Amino acid sequence: MSGHDERQTLATRAAAAMWARDDAARHLGMELRAMAPGEASLAMKVAAFMLNGHEICHGGYIFTLADTAFAYACNWSGETTVAMHADINFLKPGRLGDELVATARHRAGEGRSGVYDVVVERGSDVLAVFRGLSRRTGGSFLGEDA
Amino acid sequence: MSGHDERQTLATRAAAAMWARDDAARHLGMELRAMAPGEASLAMKVAAFMLNGHEICHGGYIFTLADTAFAYACNWSGETTVAMHADINFLKPGRLGDELVATARHRAGEGRSGVYDVVVERGSDVLAVFRGLSRRTGGSFLGEDA
Amino acid sequence: MSGHDERQTLATRAAAAMWARDDAARHLGMELRAMAPGEASLAMKVAAFMLNGHEICHGGYIFTLADTAFAYACNWSGETTVAMHADINFLKPGRLGDELVATARHRAGEGRSGVYDVVVERGSDVLAVFRGLSRRTGGSFLGEDA
Amino acid sequence: MSGHDERQTLATRAAAAMWARDDAARHLGMELRAMAPGEASLAMKVAAFMLNGHEICHGGYIFTLADTAFAYACNWSGETTVAMHADINFLKPGRLGDELVATARHRAGEGRSGVYDVVVERGSDVLAVFRGLSRRTGGSFLGEDA
Repeated sequence: MSGHDERQTLATRAAAAMWARDDAARHLGMELRAMAPGEASLAMKVAAFMLNGHEICHGGYIFTLADTAFAYACNWSGETTVAMHADINFLKPGRLGDELVATARHRAGEGRSGVYDVVVERGSDVLAVFRGLSRRTGGSFLGEDA
Repeated sequence: MSGHDERQTLATRAAAAMWARDDAARHLGMELRAMAPGEASLAMKVAAFMLNGHEICHGGYIFTLADTAFAYACNWSGETTVAMHADINFLKPGRLGDELVATARHRAGEGRSGVYDVVVERGSDVLAVFRGLSRRTGGSFLGEDA
Repeated sequence: MSGHDERQTLATRAAAAMWARDDAARHLGMELRAMAPGEASLAMKVAAFMLNGHEICHGGYIFTLADTAFAYACNWSGETTVAMHADINFLKPGRLGDELVATARHRAGEGRSGVYDVVVERGSDVLAVFRGLSRRTGGSFLGEDA
Repeated sequence: MSGHDERQTLATRAAAAMWARDDAARHLGMELRAMAPGEASLAMKVAAFMLNGHEICHGGYIFTLADTAFAYACNWSGETTVAMHADINFLKPGRLGDELVATARHRAGEGRSGVYDVVVERGSDVLAVFRGLSRRTGGSFLGEDA
């Protein structure tokens, strides 16, 4: 296999391993749409239980979707990587029934720290932009025969 | 009533009005512990559905708890106020069954914009610190005879 | 003129008006390299007075370069716009004599608030990524016959 | 000496060692007002060369003052520590001649990462709040006989 193919294979395996134990993502009805080295895309529909006191989607769920895309993107190689810091700009509210898609991409950083940008969209409307700082903690979560 | 009492009464009314329609907070089993002018405290227990692929509490739920405390604190006067930006530092992981408490306090800002600091703790352990920027959008969500 | 040309003309006029009174940028030896609607690029050389106690470029100067590019980009139309919030990830240090280039681009946001991304590079090395939140305060700084 | 005294002595030594080579702080006319374990306070007067195109103090200089206080606070023990991330909320503008004081305090984080809060004030007016994330890189900048 070429280096490109090997990296994509690794990303696909890491996605499967994370998804298998990701109760949080499944509970929210998320769907993993795409996974590549340093990139991930997930979708989620705004459910009634996500509405806050202003009757819009609680910002926490928009963050959670973005943060999940970030987690998949930064763990793409199977090396355990955690979020140290994240920030989010809320631009437009989400409404009941909206399908939101979060797309995360590696932006900068080599070595143990990385910066990832995530955009949360409803169609072509940008609802939020998110930026996360990750840190590799060492060790792989992919078993040898996985 | 003194000015202090009137402000506290307003905060209590605003909390009740928000809580009554806050399906998101109730769905997560949050409990509103305290509410005062510019301040709010909420508790949440880490449930199994909140665990991510690393078997720790998904950062999105820690953010959601902090963001909820921020929302109550910045809406204390009944004037509709929304989150524009938030950032969070993740310091320690949350585990299944942990009781997390988020306490939000107004930090700075007069007029329409405000900065609020939130700390998320498990006992005396700080799991995360959060800072939010709010903006009043005009209008009150408290009815005249509420 | 086409709409595109008119927008570029406005950006060029705004850049000239800002630059004429921008003592801070000139004092730091900055050079305005490019200006377009929602975009700006500035260069700055790391001088001896910018070195901190670790003998690398003080992060404040890297921030200042990024913040300046942000300011030009978000004021491109001549409507007075200020920074409300900014955050920066420091990835690699700057050294004495390095030429740093900051490029700012509108990322999201319509109406009065905008999000701009800035990257600070030395050649193809990314030293820092910056994200700013702007707010239009009303009024234009371009005179009618400017 | 008590543990408290030893820590203060270390902070005082670290401050002196940093200040001796901090050309950036001196160039801006900063004054180190206080230094303690995890805390530092610096003052700076807004000079003409700090004014931007809106004739207010360039946000970059306010950031630089805050970032300097952060750097002193997080390097208090003499172990080399760098800024990984910082964010700032700009609340009120600084004017020519204003004396600004930045006070940094350790907020959370044990081990190699730390979160520091900085407030930039003019008298009792809060101009900006800043939050920084630091990382110890290993090694001490205090010589054995310093």
